Amino acid sequence: MLTRSELGNLEARAVRQIIREGGWTGTSKRLALGREQANIVILREEYALDFFRFCHRNPKPLFLIEVTDTGDPEPKICAPGADLRTDLPAYRLYRDGEAVEDLTDIKHLWRDDHVAFLTGCNLSVDQVMIENRIPLPHLIDDEAWPSQYISNISCQPAGIFKGPQVVSMRPIPEKLLIKVIEITSRYPRSHGAPLHVGDPFAIGIDDLNEVDWGKLNKIGEGFLPVFWACGITAQAVACEIKIPEMITHKPGHMFVTDIAVADPTK
Amino acid sequence: MLTRSELGNLEARAVRQIIREGGWTGTSKRLALGREQANIVILREEYALDFFRFCHRNPKPLFLIEVTDTGDPEPKICAPGADLRTDLPAYRLYRDGEAVEDLTDIKHLWRDDHVAFLTGCNLSVDQVMIENRIPLPHLIDDEAWPSQYISNISCQPAGIFKGPQVVSMRPIPEKLLIKVIEITSRYPRSHGAPLHVGDPFAIGIDDLNEVDWGKLNKIGEGFLPVFWACGITAQAVACEIKIPEMITHKPGHMFVTDIAVADPTK
Repeated sequence: MLTRSELGNLEARAVRQIIREGGWTGTSKRLALGREQANIVILREEYALDFFRFCHRNPKPLFLIEVTDTGDPEPKICAPGADLRTDLPAYRLYRDGEAVEDLTDIKHLWRDDHVAFLTGCNLSVDQVMIENRIPLPHLIDDEAWPSQYISNISCQPAGIFKGPQVVSMRPIPEKLLIKVIEITSRYPRSHGAPLHVGDPFAIGIDDLNEVDWGKLNKIGEGFLPVFWACGITAQAVACEIKIPEMITHKPGHMFVTDIAVADPTK
Repeated sequence: MLTRSELGNLEARAVRQIIREGGWTGTSKRLALGREQANIVILREEYALDFFRFCHRNPKPLFLIEVTDTGDPEPKICAPGADLRTDLPAYRLYRDGEAVEDLTDIKHLWRDDHVAFLTGCNLSVDQVMIENRIPLPHLIDDEAWPSQYISNISCQPAGIFKGPQVVSMRPIPEKLLIKVIEITSRYPRSHGAPLHVGDPFAIGIDDLNEVDWGKLNKIGEGFLPVFWACGITAQAVACEIKIPEMITHKPGHMFVTDIAVADPTK
């Protein structure tokens, strides 16, 4: 079994192949560094047009990287040759808005009317942060992760899809705040600039100690809580409206695309 | 009747109101300068998911600004209060891939299953070019316009939508080539950087004197032909596949949105 550090230096295609063969079921943190990672939402076609509009109207949480042809599990543009039924480290199946099962393969669940939506993910900018020597706590060890909360910032609705945005919080050293905003604003595919800095109450979070997803991160002396839009918004909204079926990546276990994070033209 | 120059200094909302009341039926060139203009394609919902994918996969010709709710003629995000049935200076109706009628109002044609796609347009960067003192021939007088050709560069297909990209050609002074590429690459909503510079044969254009749309522009001494992706790609593809019905802006008669061209976050 290769280590995370070894997988970090491989090309995206090689990482996907290892995952497909069962060689990695952990999170996708720091895999194929420099390649765009994507959140995955798979829905039946009857929901696809509205969900497409929903993502397009809410690019900060749900920046659209690719939408597959109906019934085709290959994301032909961002990862030719890949198979979205096998190439993620882990999946989560939701029925009627409830998470019912985590899986490492969804071949038996795939349908001719499935459409997959690939949206941007903050893990994509990990390498950017490392190269810029930004000491973000969530990068320090394998178990570290941002804190995630349901905010009171509404998504732009589309059809049945509506609800609040989920945000991810990272404690940022006050001295680095402007630099972090400046850097992240250049990566709109990966949630871009923060939505909010400072007072959690202002965006409807009563208690930072009560995370909705992710890990608790304490705000140390000289740090500020900084909030970004988060891709979990899709799962939160789909659960809220009790969609009959949705398949997503298991949180933290994203799909690695061929797109260079450094390429703004893709 | 206000002049083009007077309409150039008005806010987008005021320009739309004047158009709605029949006060302007000319091209949208230099109207509400500094505001994003949009090409419009209106299709029945049965084609909407594939056309959505088609635009999303081909952002250089068809950068998606907004997709309306089915049956709703208001583009709520980029122009709240606007009505896409009345607020364009002129429309073109296609049936079975043939242009059959030009109109100034499509209220009588609008259906409950219509979806409107708003995509980026090169007229949006006119003010940017003017401010940067780029002496582009197509900006010089009211009648001037880029030359437009069918290239041999294929679109990424989506469902029934497939075909070659249409390109617009502007003669650019050799000395300004890099500057023009640098500037336009910062406006991905408005077709971004050129697709090609120089030899027209390389992209399948045998004779620059035979334009497919727009006006003939001669390449003077010290100028280079520079080719950008063009929004007419949508009409060309829809005609090619003989789509039963499509309503678009009349070429050159675009919709003026509230979005600031200078705002890269929209």
